[in-house]
Amino acid sequence: MSNTLTHTYLLRVEFGDCDPAQIVWFPNFFRWVDAASRHFFVQCGLPSWKETERERGILGTPLVDTQAKFLRPASYGDALAIDSSVTEWRRKSFVMTHRIRRGETLLVEITEVRVFARRKGDGSDPHAIEAVPVPADWRQLCAAAEAVCVR
Amino acid sequence: MSNTLTHTYLLRVEFGDCDPAQIVWFPNFFRWVDAASRHFFVQCGLPSWKETERERGILGTPLVDTQAKFLRPASYGDALAIDSSVTEWRRKSFVMTHRIRRGETLLVEITEVRVFARRKGDGSDPHAIEAVPVPADWRQLCAAAEAVCVR
Amino acid sequence: MSNTLTHTYLLRVEFGDCDPAQIVWFPNFFRWVDAASRHFFVQCGLPSWKETERERGILGTPLVDTQAKFLRPASYGDALAIDSSVTEWRRKSFVMTHRIRRGETLLVEITEVRVFARRKGDGSDPHAIEAVPVPADWRQLCAAAEAVCVR
Amino acid sequence: MSNTLTHTYLLRVEFGDCDPAQIVWFPNFFRWVDAASRHFFVQCGLPSWKETERERGILGTPLVDTQAKFLRPASYGDALAIDSSVTEWRRKSFVMTHRIRRGETLLVEITEVRVFARRKGDGSDPHAIEAVPVPADWRQLCAAAEAVCVR
Repeated sequence: MSNTLTHTYLLRVEFGDCDPAQIVWFPNFFRWVDAASRHFFVQCGLPSWKETERERGILGTPLVDTQAKFLRPASYGDALAIDSSVTEWRRKSFVMTHRIRRGETLLVEITEVRVFARRKGDGSDPHAIEAVPVPADWRQLCAAAEAVCVR
Repeated sequence: MSNTLTHTYLLRVEFGDCDPAQIVWFPNFFRWVDAASRHFFVQCGLPSWKETERERGILGTPLVDTQAKFLRPASYGDALAIDSSVTEWRRKSFVMTHRIRRGETLLVEITEVRVFARRKGDGSDPHAIEAVPVPADWRQLCAAAEAVCVR
Repeated sequence: MSNTLTHTYLLRVEFGDCDPAQIVWFPNFFRWVDAASRHFFVQCGLPSWKETERERGILGTPLVDTQAKFLRPASYGDALAIDSSVTEWRRKSFVMTHRIRRGETLLVEITEVRVFARRKGDGSDPHAIEAVPVPADWRQLCAAAEAVCVR
Repeated sequence: MSNTLTHTYLLRVEFGDCDPAQIVWFPNFFRWVDAASRHFFVQCGLPSWKETERERGILGTPLVDTQAKFLRPASYGDALAIDSSVTEWRRKSFVMTHRIRRGETLLVEITEVRVFARRKGDGSDPHAIEAVPVPADWRQLCAAAEAVCVR
C-alpha cells in the first residue's frame, strides 16, 4: 500500500525486559506496540487522550482483538524498531499492523483491532466502555498524514 | 471436551494493573496467562524450567503465536479466574486456551501456540532458540492428569 | 508494637517476574508493596480510590519517599508474604513498613512515606497533586481495626 | 563534583506507564533507573552482563539498598531525562545517584547501593548470590571515562 502512513517507534531492550531465558518476555512486546499505536495518532495530529476525554469523552483506543506471531527472540542491548500503520478503517473500528524488527530482521508481527471508546452511558457499570464511530475529523487528519506519503 | 484438564489460576486486579482509563492495561492480561500457562504444567507434575534447563536444556515454553479477544474490561478490586487447558497437542507445539472471567462473566479469551524450546546448537546467535518435539514423558504426565478429569 | 494492625499480602513469584539473573527483578517488589499498601486500607474499611475520588477528590496514597533494603533474592516458584503496617501517623502523611518474607526468612524491607492526595486546585498543571490532612474518619477506621489487634 | 561522569538516559512516558490517577505509577521509575544504571556502565566500556557472566561469573549489579524521593509527578507525553553517576566507590559496593527531570524540573531523586554479584559457591541455594570486590579493571574503565569529564 503505497499511500499507507507508517510510523516507526524506536526502542532499546533493557535487562529488565528479559526473562530467565534471557530473551524478551513477550508481554513487553505488547507494551511497546501499545505505545507505538498511540504515537501513530500523535504523529497524525490527534490530541492526547486526556484532552479527548475532556472534550469528547473519548478515553483512548482500547484493544478488541489481537493476533501476534513471534518469529525470533530479542535480548537486552538490542535496538528495535516498530513500523506501525492503520491497514484498514472500518466504521467503528480500525486495524493496526505492527512489525517489530531488529535492523531488517522481522522478529514479531502484531495485528490489532482497536476502537475509539467512551464510557457507557447508563452508569450501571462504571467501567463499561463502548465503541464510538471513528470521528470523521480524525479520520481526515490521518488521511491527510497518509496523503503526504503517497508517491 | 470432557477429558480436558483445566487449571484455574486466581488473581486480584491491583491499582497498578490499570491505566489512566481506569481499566486493566491489556499487556497485563498476557502477563497473567503466561503465569497461568506455567501453573498448568506445574499441576501436571512438570519440574520448574530451571530444573529442565539443567537436565534437558529445555528452558520453557516460549510463545509462537497468540490470538486474543477482549470482550469486557476489568478494573482494580476485581477477582479474576483464568481457566487454562491444552486444547491440542501437536508434534512440536501445543495449543493452550485461556478463558479469563470475573465470576461467570467471560472477559478475555486467549489462544496460544507454544513450543518447548532449547538453545539452538551452533551458538552463532546466543539467543536463538528452537522447538524440540514435545517430550513423550511430559505428554504422558499431562495425559495422566487429564485422565483424572474424565467423567 | 502489640497494637499495630498488620495486613499480610500473599503472592507467588512468577517466571516473568524474574530477570536474566533468574531472580526477582527489583521493581516488582515495589509493584507488590504498592498492592499490599492498598489492601491494608481495604482491610481497615476504606472505600476504593475510585469512590473516594468521586466523593472527596482523594485519588489515592501516592508515595513521597521510600527506603528499601534487599537482603536476599527470590525466584519463581517462591511463595512470599508481605506484612504491612502503618508505623507512624503524621498530620499530612504516614509511614508504612512492609516486610517481605519467604516463610520466616526476611528478604526485603521497605519503608514508605505516603500521603492522601487530591488534584491541586488551580488547574495550571492538570497532573499536579497535593497532600491533604489525613482524614479523621479514616484515621479512626484504622485505629478501630488496630484496636482489634491489641492483646 | 567536577570530575564525576554523568550519563543521561532519555525516555518518554507512555500511557501504559500511568495509573488510574493519570500519573506515572512509581515502580516504573525504578524500572527506568535500572536501565539508566546499566547504560552508565555500557558507556564506561563494560561488557554486557551476559558476557561478564560467561567470563567472570558476574551476573550484574543487584541492588542492596535504595532511597527515593518523589517530588513531582509525571504523566504520559512527558519527555524525561535521568542523570546517573557513581557518587561513591566502596570496596565491595558503590553508590549511584539518579536524578529524574523533565527539562530542568527535578521530579524524582534515587540513590542506590549496588554490588557486582556472582552466584554463591556452595550451590545449596541455586539463587543465592554474593558481592565480589569491585573489579579493579572496571573501576579503572570508569575512572578513565570520568577523567574525560574533568575540566
